[in-house]
Amino acid sequence: MSLPTQPYKGTRDFYPEDKRIQKYMFAKLRQVVESFGYQEYDAPLLEPFEVYAAKSGDELVNEQLYSFEDRGGRKVAIRPEMTPSVSRMVAGRRQELAYPLRLYSIPNLWRYERPQRGRLREHWQLNVDLFGIDDISADEEIIQMADSILKALGADSHEYVIKVNSRKLLKRLDEHINLSQDKARQLYRIADKKNKMTDEQFKQEIFEAGLDASVDFFFAATIDKLPAPLNESEEAENLEGLIARLNKVGVNAVFDPGIVRGFDYYTDIIFEVYDFEGANNRSMFGGGRYDGLVGLFGVEPVPTVGFGMGDVTLQNFLVTHKLLPELPSETDVTAILIGDVYDQAQGALSGLRESGVNIAVDASDRKLDSKIKHAVKSGTRYALFIGESELSSGKLKLRDLTKGHEDELGLKEIINKFAKHP
Amino acid sequence: MSLPTQPYKGTRDFYPEDKRIQKYMFAKLRQVVESFGYQEYDAPLLEPFEVYAAKSGDELVNEQLYSFEDRGGRKVAIRPEMTPSVSRMVAGRRQELAYPLRLYSIPNLWRYERPQRGRLREHWQLNVDLFGIDDISADEEIIQMADSILKALGADSHEYVIKVNSRKLLKRLDEHINLSQDKARQLYRIADKKNKMTDEQFKQEIFEAGLDASVDFFFAATIDKLPAPLNESEEAENLEGLIARLNKVGVNAVFDPGIVRGFDYYTDIIFEVYDFEGANNRSMFGGGRYDGLVGLFGVEPVPTVGFGMGDVTLQNFLVTHKLLPELPSETDVTAILIGDVYDQAQGALSGLRESGVNIAVDASDRKLDSKIKHAVKSGTRYALFIGESELSSGKLKLRDLTKGHEDELGLKEIINKFAKHP
Repeated sequence: MSLPTQPYKGTRDFYPEDKRIQKYMFAKLRQVVESFGYQEYDAPLLEPFEVYAAKSGDELVNEQLYSFEDRGGRKVAIRPEMTPSVSRMVAGRRQELAYPLRLYSIPNLWRYERPQRGRLREHWQLNVDLFGIDDISADEEIIQMADSILKALGADSHEYVIKVNSRKLLKRLDEHINLSQDKARQLYRIADKKNKMTDEQFKQEIFEAGLDASVDFFFAATIDKLPAPLNESEEAENLEGLIARLNKVGVNAVFDPGIVRGFDYYTDIIFEVYDFEGANNRSMFGGGRYDGLVGLFGVEPVPTVGFGMGDVTLQNFLVTHKLLPELPSETDVTAILIGDVYDQAQGALSGLRESGVNIAVDASDRKLDSKIKHAVKSGTRYALFIGESELSSGKLKLRDLTKGHEDELGLKEIINKFAKHP
Repeated sequence: MSLPTQPYKGTRDFYPEDKRIQKYMFAKLRQVVESFGYQEYDAPLLEPFEVYAAKSGDELVNEQLYSFEDRGGRKVAIRPEMTPSVSRMVAGRRQELAYPLRLYSIPNLWRYERPQRGRLREHWQLNVDLFGIDDISADEEIIQMADSILKALGADSHEYVIKVNSRKLLKRLDEHINLSQDKARQLYRIADKKNKMTDEQFKQEIFEAGLDASVDFFFAATIDKLPAPLNESEEAENLEGLIARLNKVGVNAVFDPGIVRGFDYYTDIIFEVYDFEGANNRSMFGGGRYDGLVGLFGVEPVPTVGFGMGDVTLQNFLVTHKLLPELPSETDVTAILIGDVYDQAQGALSGLRESGVNIAVDASDRKLDSKIKHAVKSGTRYALFIGESELSSGKLKLRDLTKGHEDELGLKEIINKFAKHP
């Protein structure tokens, strides 16, 4: 009986043409976040189970976590998110690290989900975190950076909107309308779905839960239209200031009282980036402030703002808005050997490679036609013909396989044409 | 009770200075293998358990594999090696892919090991595979590429040696001295340890196992000194030809009858790269031909040669031979804001960032001295001072924090100094 060729359910194989798309996206992400002074870190794929049990939220831990006992009886989990790992790392060097501390990573994460559009069991996620700043400038930088990434990938401001809210403001609401902690949780769960429901559906759920007093809050179009005294609270003022500053630097940010975020650890400003695709209005990714997480690891807390941006939703966004460029093969040239010149050709091939030309060799004894066909199929744009006479004359035929055009070039000319690091 | 800050046993946290080393190594690996026409692929971290049960070898599957049941009752494993995954992927598109097919990946792999020097539970490994060539040119290319990688990282030929052997030749030996399959396995297990033992210890183990007839084979210094008729076999001739061709292109390759390799799936040429560090003679990494693995997935077999190179042993090698360069922070500049100019500075900061200058901002209300101290601590080489007067004059003070030297520069001059993509 033979083994199946499909990958594990809800995951992807990345053939070179798929991997190229991911590499293109990740290179842009790295470029933008490094331009803001963020430095890359990484953490192990497995973490002790308790790291997530603490603060990641019940649904994730009880239903979605990949956890098991290792051969030594330790309960471990495959990371479903990166925030607990980076918080652990910062706690581990709380005193030695320099603040503000800017960190990013692009880990793969695992959740046991029913696979569907935008949701897979394995995905990669850019994680960006700014540690050590307790004022609104940190929130501004993080949201501005999320915006810069989308723009660097070619998106226009009118193709998405960044919706901002505040957990502290939500807490004020709870106090104002006198909600128990349980009732408040229920309210957040309903609010979290607001952007997927009609206004009527939302109101009905709110009324059925006996949360009528919260309706005015969730239908406030702007901060100044929030029910008094919330509209004059410090939290409202803060939020309004943040949005004004973001708008001033060209970020399409708006207040949305229905933004709640799933994780338990957020403490203040939270945001989500929405795709404006036709009638569709989908949350792509988000983040916020979580000042308490580093402190769970037994050190003095560190104020932190961050976000996570997944590769699946990002790629869907780029495809929908036609923002993915043509990505050519990394291989510049297929060298087609004519006759038995494998050994003689090594000098020329090494010289080209060391000068930064990417060359695959076809030394098979197939017919010339068949070799050319395979070079085309492999996605390489150019073929370079190397036989006895070419090696002795030092002039090689380079054929553009997309146009059929052919040039006779010396090694130096070939290097100049392709070299990425001259 | 607070959570522990240590990573899971046998794994590493990568703080930015650690990650930079890994990024440096991986960039070199990518550069070299892409220059040989290899393209990057990736596969999911989890695979069905059966994929490894088939051919990875008993020790790995029974003692080292991280395997468990998912929430749907499927038996899965965290990949301990990449070869089965890439074989599965090639089988999945056996007909559509163009051959020769050159693929590489740098996955993280997991094995339940007792952590020690060079062995961790999580490591990254460059995997390079060449599919579709059944003659010795494929083995030559793969070994030459392994050699080119070490040279690109600054190593000299005399700092390592590539030891080559052949599974087919070992099989000839088994036939010649009439070994049962069980006895042959036992012989391979002993041979695999030969390079870690003295000759006396090795002989003793061989004699104790009743394998006396194999001794002449394992002490043959060159191929022509193998016991007859093995010395005149097709396999010996092939191996001799390969080594001669490798030597001709400057690869320090030698015959070593004690090279066996652990995996069950190898079918012909096998090799291991040894570090010549003083008296130390450690196997760093290796590979070989495995023509049968793709066929296990229910398709026509594909001849394949490949190798895997782990990051832990590679980094140890580079450190031992003093080949790791100083790696500066990705952040070029810390912008130190003077006074409340955060909003006004945004235009200048965005302009610099979009032109490829990596800038971290310190907008805190700490004293200037303290800000400079933190910039130094963060590892950034330059500080850029931005206040009201600098913004109105357009001239900014740039201080080299390593030398104390200061320049007054316009934005264009700063861009020219740092821009990586002008």
